Amino acid sequence: MPIETTSGSSLVAKELPPLRIGVCGNGTVGGGTIDILTQQAELLARRAGRELRLTRVGARRDRDDCPTGDLPVHRDLLEVAAADDVDVLVECIGGTSLARDLVAAAIAAGKSVVTANKALIAEHGNELLAAAEAAGVSLLCEAAVAGGIPVLKTLREGLAANRVASLGGIINGTGNFILTEMGAAGRSFEDVLAEAQALGYAEADPTFDVEGIDAAHKLTILASIAFAMPLNFSGVYCEGISGVSPDDLSFAAELGYRIKHLGIAKQHEEGVELRVHPTLLPSDGLLANVDGVLNAVQFEGDAAGPVLCSGAGAGRLPTASAVVADIVDIARSADTPLHCLGESLASLTPRTVLPMDRVRSAWYLRLEAEDRPGVMSELARCLGSEGISIEALIQKPPKPGESSVCIVVLTNEAREDALRRAARAIASMDAVNDAPHAIRVETQAR
Amino acid sequence: MPIETTSGSSLVAKELPPLRIGVCGNGTVGGGTIDILTQQAELLARRAGRELRLTRVGARRDRDDCPTGDLPVHRDLLEVAAADDVDVLVECIGGTSLARDLVAAAIAAGKSVVTANKALIAEHGNELLAAAEAAGVSLLCEAAVAGGIPVLKTLREGLAANRVASLGGIINGTGNFILTEMGAAGRSFEDVLAEAQALGYAEADPTFDVEGIDAAHKLTILASIAFAMPLNFSGVYCEGISGVSPDDLSFAAELGYRIKHLGIAKQHEEGVELRVHPTLLPSDGLLANVDGVLNAVQFEGDAAGPVLCSGAGAGRLPTASAVVADIVDIARSADTPLHCLGESLASLTPRTVLPMDRVRSAWYLRLEAEDRPGVMSELARCLGSEGISIEALIQKPPKPGESSVCIVVLTNEAREDALRRAARAIASMDAVNDAPHAIRVETQAR
Repeated sequence: MPIETTSGSSLVAKELPPLRIGVCGNGTVGGGTIDILTQQAELLARRAGRELRLTRVGARRDRDDCPTGDLPVHRDLLEVAAADDVDVLVECIGGTSLARDLVAAAIAAGKSVVTANKALIAEHGNELLAAAEAAGVSLLCEAAVAGGIPVLKTLREGLAANRVASLGGIINGTGNFILTEMGAAGRSFEDVLAEAQALGYAEADPTFDVEGIDAAHKLTILASIAFAMPLNFSGVYCEGISGVSPDDLSFAAELGYRIKHLGIAKQHEEGVELRVHPTLLPSDGLLANVDGVLNAVQFEGDAAGPVLCSGAGAGRLPTASAVVADIVDIARSADTPLHCLGESLASLTPRTVLPMDRVRSAWYLRLEAEDRPGVMSELARCLGSEGISIEALIQKPPKPGESSVCIVVLTNEAREDALRRAARAIASMDAVNDAPHAIRVETQAR
Repeated sequence: MPIETTSGSSLVAKELPPLRIGVCGNGTVGGGTIDILTQQAELLARRAGRELRLTRVGARRDRDDCPTGDLPVHRDLLEVAAADDVDVLVECIGGTSLARDLVAAAIAAGKSVVTANKALIAEHGNELLAAAEAAGVSLLCEAAVAGGIPVLKTLREGLAANRVASLGGIINGTGNFILTEMGAAGRSFEDVLAEAQALGYAEADPTFDVEGIDAAHKLTILASIAFAMPLNFSGVYCEGISGVSPDDLSFAAELGYRIKHLGIAKQHEEGVELRVHPTLLPSDGLLANVDGVLNAVQFEGDAAGPVLCSGAGAGRLPTASAVVADIVDIARSADTPLHCLGESLASLTPRTVLPMDRVRSAWYLRLEAEDRPGVMSELARCLGSEGISIEALIQKPPKPGESSVCIVVLTNEAREDALRRAARAIASMDAVNDAPHAIRVETQAR
């Protein structure tokens, strides 16, 4: 019979001591984590089977929106990593230099670590996870991918009975907000980006978001868990959304598609695909309808089939919700929750990343051509000679005073090298001025 | 330092013995579970940190689609519950009589239980969970709600840092298929039901699915975990989809809504709402776009915000995927995974269920009225005298040869007793023949 604890819970067979937590960083995520730990202390103690006690805060400066009461606040964050009264270090300082040292120091001191830092895990996760494993501690990062949505838990535990053959996700809220607004209002990328910056959805330097680097960090983590492979950030092909025009969004809509900025990972016999780029999705699918700043990830399990999780991908409390869920997991578990269920880092298998030339997908091509006879048959010949057929086609009449017409082609699925050769052939046509503008199409991610 | 196991995993600090599993039932779910346990044995052993060994099968008859090799197959299922070489009993026989005895016997024999049986847990879960708790064993039922989608894990663990104020879900695939087809093709309920039966999506006796009883079972389980309350199946208000007409679906579409059969649970100071009924949802929300046999559940967390999970709500392998995930959780955990995280059954608080008269929602009303002056103002007066205002209105011209017109009204939010009084007043109007046809509207479940 389990012994009753004071709260009446019989989850734990013995009274467990408090789990002592040091939070480094008092910005958006750190502040939200401190909020939840202090305001929901009673609820969390019940659910975790023991008190979650915030013992120390590390922050380079005080902030009005993050009151820390009587807690010691350390300017030297490494003191938190070394403190005797810290069992779990929560890293919310961002960046990859000091954060890397801080997490390494905490692990070396025998402490488990929870982080929301996607760049840190994607770029230095292999070394940090190896250190955590050697030290017998946990390094968890639910908050690093898709904010408040428990996608890593779903993948690792909820789909434990599955081999996941592929996954696709809208994992950058800024990019999704921009594409959604561009599509809804026919506005330009630059115009919506400026609004996103004014609303605080985009950074002053939006490169990480709009060029897909942030999404590539998150995809790296997802693929690592899904395919039990080491983190391989440098293997991710990455293309941003700045090349998508309002015309593309409206042509796509006319063809029954929406354009989303997706992270995609697929597993094949000969290797894995890891890629981040704008993607046409059939508009009747759920992922295509995840709008605004929402995030979503869809897993394709061999037993469960497609499983989609959607919600807030960023924000103070959503992200902190994921941080605290990781802390509760550590508090509840006698074992060490690992990055991949049951896989030691040493047992992870490095996978060949397929070069993009060998990746197969369907394509959306948009081009301007002179409005004269024979253009369409030449265009079809350029594609056909590479074995690519046309699934759908739109040709608009020339605008008043212009002699060129806009042609949009949806191809069937083909290898990327074949498509590139065809695109070069099209670009060299007399009637065509510029290389066709090309966006990949996913028809299976419904 | 953890000791290495033969697989190179350091998840477990010591070699754990195999977890021995007895599966009762060799139909859809039991057969799928046996498939996964045998075909994915190596993968599962790695993820669970120990072998998951199928030792016994209980089945009242052999089935060609469920080969059991050399395993002993017991006709008397209670022998499986009593067997010395069974640590976990998987109950996949369905029903609530023998299943109840079987699960109770397994628990009494000190075995953990995994079940896909929503009726059993919803109707007898309180007694069975109390027995499991007293015996220090687990009783898990991920597969009972939304099939292959790990919604209970998401709610219990992924949202551990949240108070969940409300949840809403499409938790019956048959009903969702019927409504989707009716909406897409303008077909009648009876017509689509016959097709669903031919496709195997609906039972010969479809009462459980189309009258909402199956959904009410699942809602009972979700609400119990979300609000840490005892299972209260008899408290669920339940309305089926047989009253929804193709006209309703097309009027709803005209107003910017779709009609879904939802299970809804909300928590208020004065009590909880537990209700299953057809519901209008704004068509731009994600839940409104979950179509066909897919299921989805959306949780509203106070920190994470809205989190939606979608996927296959039924089927051999999806349901078995959830069963096996529960088994892996039991295998990995030194503690006993409980129904509600950290809550003993004794500590669950019974909640008052709000009578439907006190539930607030907006309404869709459809009625036939004589086409004569003053009808609309009288209609507005019936609503206005109960403090109900009109948000939107459609009046169609009379059909050729008919003197009555169809009027559709969308009201603002009001208490259900006020709406019922207004509906009675409308029904008693001279120009109106029948009571208005009424469907609730949820505007927040986006």
